[in-house]
Amino acid sequence: MRMYDIIEKKRDGYPLTDEEIRFFIQGYTEGSIPDYQASALCMAIYFQGMNDQEISVLTDAMASSGDQVDLSKYGHLSVDKHSTGGVGDKTSLVVLPLVASLGVKVAKMTGPGLGHTGGTVDKLLSIPGYRIQLSPEDFSVQVSRIGIAVVGQSRNLAPADKKLYALRDVTATVSSIPLITSSIMSKKLASGAKNIVLDVKVGSGAFMKSPEDAHLLAEKMVHIGQMCGRNVTAVLTNMNVPLGNNIGNALEVKEAVGVLRGEVFGELRDVCEELASNLICMAFEISPEKAASMVRDAIDDGSAYRKMLEWISAQGGDIRTLEDLSLLPKAKFEYDICSTHNGYITKMDAERVGITSVILGAGREVKDAPIDYGSGIILYKKAGDPVSIGEKLCTLYTDREDKIPEAEKMFRSALTIGFTKPVPQPLIYEIIRSKKS
Amino acid sequence: MRMYDIIEKKRDGYPLTDEEIRFFIQGYTEGSIPDYQASALCMAIYFQGMNDQEISVLTDAMASSGDQVDLSKYGHLSVDKHSTGGVGDKTSLVVLPLVASLGVKVAKMTGPGLGHTGGTVDKLLSIPGYRIQLSPEDFSVQVSRIGIAVVGQSRNLAPADKKLYALRDVTATVSSIPLITSSIMSKKLASGAKNIVLDVKVGSGAFMKSPEDAHLLAEKMVHIGQMCGRNVTAVLTNMNVPLGNNIGNALEVKEAVGVLRGEVFGELRDVCEELASNLICMAFEISPEKAASMVRDAIDDGSAYRKMLEWISAQGGDIRTLEDLSLLPKAKFEYDICSTHNGYITKMDAERVGITSVILGAGREVKDAPIDYGSGIILYKKAGDPVSIGEKLCTLYTDREDKIPEAEKMFRSALTIGFTKPVPQPLIYEIIRSKKS
Repeated sequence: MRMYDIIEKKRDGYPLTDEEIRFFIQGYTEGSIPDYQASALCMAIYFQGMNDQEISVLTDAMASSGDQVDLSKYGHLSVDKHSTGGVGDKTSLVVLPLVASLGVKVAKMTGPGLGHTGGTVDKLLSIPGYRIQLSPEDFSVQVSRIGIAVVGQSRNLAPADKKLYALRDVTATVSSIPLITSSIMSKKLASGAKNIVLDVKVGSGAFMKSPEDAHLLAEKMVHIGQMCGRNVTAVLTNMNVPLGNNIGNALEVKEAVGVLRGEVFGELRDVCEELASNLICMAFEISPEKAASMVRDAIDDGSAYRKMLEWISAQGGDIRTLEDLSLLPKAKFEYDICSTHNGYITKMDAERVGITSVILGAGREVKDAPIDYGSGIILYKKAGDPVSIGEKLCTLYTDREDKIPEAEKMFRSALTIGFTKPVPQPLIYEIIRSKKS
Repeated sequence: MRMYDIIEKKRDGYPLTDEEIRFFIQGYTEGSIPDYQASALCMAIYFQGMNDQEISVLTDAMASSGDQVDLSKYGHLSVDKHSTGGVGDKTSLVVLPLVASLGVKVAKMTGPGLGHTGGTVDKLLSIPGYRIQLSPEDFSVQVSRIGIAVVGQSRNLAPADKKLYALRDVTATVSSIPLITSSIMSKKLASGAKNIVLDVKVGSGAFMKSPEDAHLLAEKMVHIGQMCGRNVTAVLTNMNVPLGNNIGNALEVKEAVGVLRGEVFGELRDVCEELASNLICMAFEISPEKAASMVRDAIDDGSAYRKMLEWISAQGGDIRTLEDLSLLPKAKFEYDICSTHNGYITKMDAERVGITSVILGAGREVKDAPIDYGSGIILYKKAGDPVSIGEKLCTLYTDREDKIPEAEKMFRSALTIGFTKPVPQPLIYEIIRSKKS
């Protein structure tokens, strides 16, 4: 078998065989197939696509290229959640303890954030004492005992995807549905959970800009996951504006705790309930309505919040900072931004708000850059809200006073203020579930 | 400027600017742009194409990437000939001295053959004493003095093309009209001639299998050459069967000398006259009819043959071997292949006949492999000819007696013998000339 023939075959629009796809992934991972052939194949796939059989084999081949977590001892109870990435997206901090409080098993490995969206690892590390690394044994024991453990990704999961993604990222071959699908789903397969909910973000702050594109990707991921033996539900959620009001690590922990305590309502809680319900629905094989009611109850009766304290405590976190949120890391400087116009916020560009938070020190532009856990933004007004001159729009939090002018400029550029109240946008566009086979 | 953006732009179907194309070629030649980005761009070009402006800039950028031969002192008289490669193609040996005898200037650099088609260098080296390398000064003096010099390509012509072609060859991105056009024409531009005739071979033994594909390529090369300031004519010639009767280096020299002496007629002479006429027509700005008659006369009055002797002698070749062709290198073994059927040769696969000659030692499969100058094939029967059982089809010539069975098997597999005389195929499909601007 020759890589040349595989490139040529895909270039000419023919489907690749299982053997050809596995030959490519194995050879590329080992290094016997060079980058320049892999990038040519990725560009050919960009133009010619792949059928579902090809995508599922590609996904499986990449999932099998490194360590694979075995969660089979939990039967149908293991769950995982994946977000395609958004600004102010602290749903994992709410959803994971929430579903764990209902009896499913959360054995979660999560990567650091990069660019304008934050990572769950950094949010957890803003809680003093939280241990992001556990030995495989401690990890497994904690999941069995309390139902939840969340660690940084240290194991060698889907190394083929890691290598191929880095190549796609510099050869303009990222935005291909077959390649995105196999990239995301290969990591999910290797992570071992039986039930997976995918939060597919849609809008200016997300990778998928339109509901139509997001639908195609989501449907494909759900179907490929099913072909690979997993239950998958995709929830398409709005990312034209940041999710919730707080952006920045400790600030997001505060807001997430607020939801779990039943003190914060609105879009953030709604999205979290939707994601959690779908996991419970799959794991317990119950109706969406029954699952939704269980999820609401778990917040309202305090069990979800108690599960969060139990989890954070088990991993060494100081839960006094959750019981009294004023003890979480705080930024040195605060700065209010006020409206200079009367009218309505007609647009709030989520990506620019995210970049503002990075300027303030809440995120990282490059790998391993330091971040300030207390910095970020609290929004008081969001798209659709009326504003008047002098009214507070947000507060910036930072340790880097000199960055405030740049941050203010970026934040203001994210806003459009007009005279007409904009048409409200849906919070959840669509839910796509595996078809029962 | 970033290579990533250039790949993405072409991927999305937009034309690249002159600056973007030059940035790519310069960066790739210098090594600052890696192979994996170049191959992704080539695949994007394969799918999205390039407009004429893009192709002409790409061609010029590659031509400018290394040495450029300056033939401007010869005004409009410099000529060059390029063949896309065929089996038994000894036209350069005829056409170059033929046009030189009429007063145009031939300053030719030529590469070695590879695969099933032979190279002009190897054919010339079968003449004892011929010096394939001349100093740039001797080369120039010889062209000025006698009008013709033919050397092996030693200068650094179009290194960008050399590097890019090697990459395309392993990433299934060779067969793209914009990339083939710029590859061929960049070398022709760097070689410096004002007037260029392209012999575009069409058929089973050629890169272009159909007249339609060859037409598209030829038209593009002619137009791009014109955009870059050269006069170009493309002649589409039949390569479903080998050209002429002799295949193999010294055997082809014999046949070429035969044409120049006015002893060999038929398709080989016809193609040579057509190619030569078109060069004369462009260089002298005269009608094709007038040029054709000058070319015929130059053969008939012996001046073309005398020019060949003058040229070969000037480069150290022993012209006694041309005056008495039996003094050229001879193979140790001869083997006749006879027909085992009665009927007509309905097909003679040129590529397989070419491979037969390589098996016999007349060509090389890999770079720098040794070749035997005397080995090859003389065909007595070609497609369309009637044959009867026991009648001689060809003689194989080789120094490697043990290879004869393999060669016979390959040769026989090239032939199809049927009961019906096949429809004659055109020798010359089409002539495409620069439009006067």
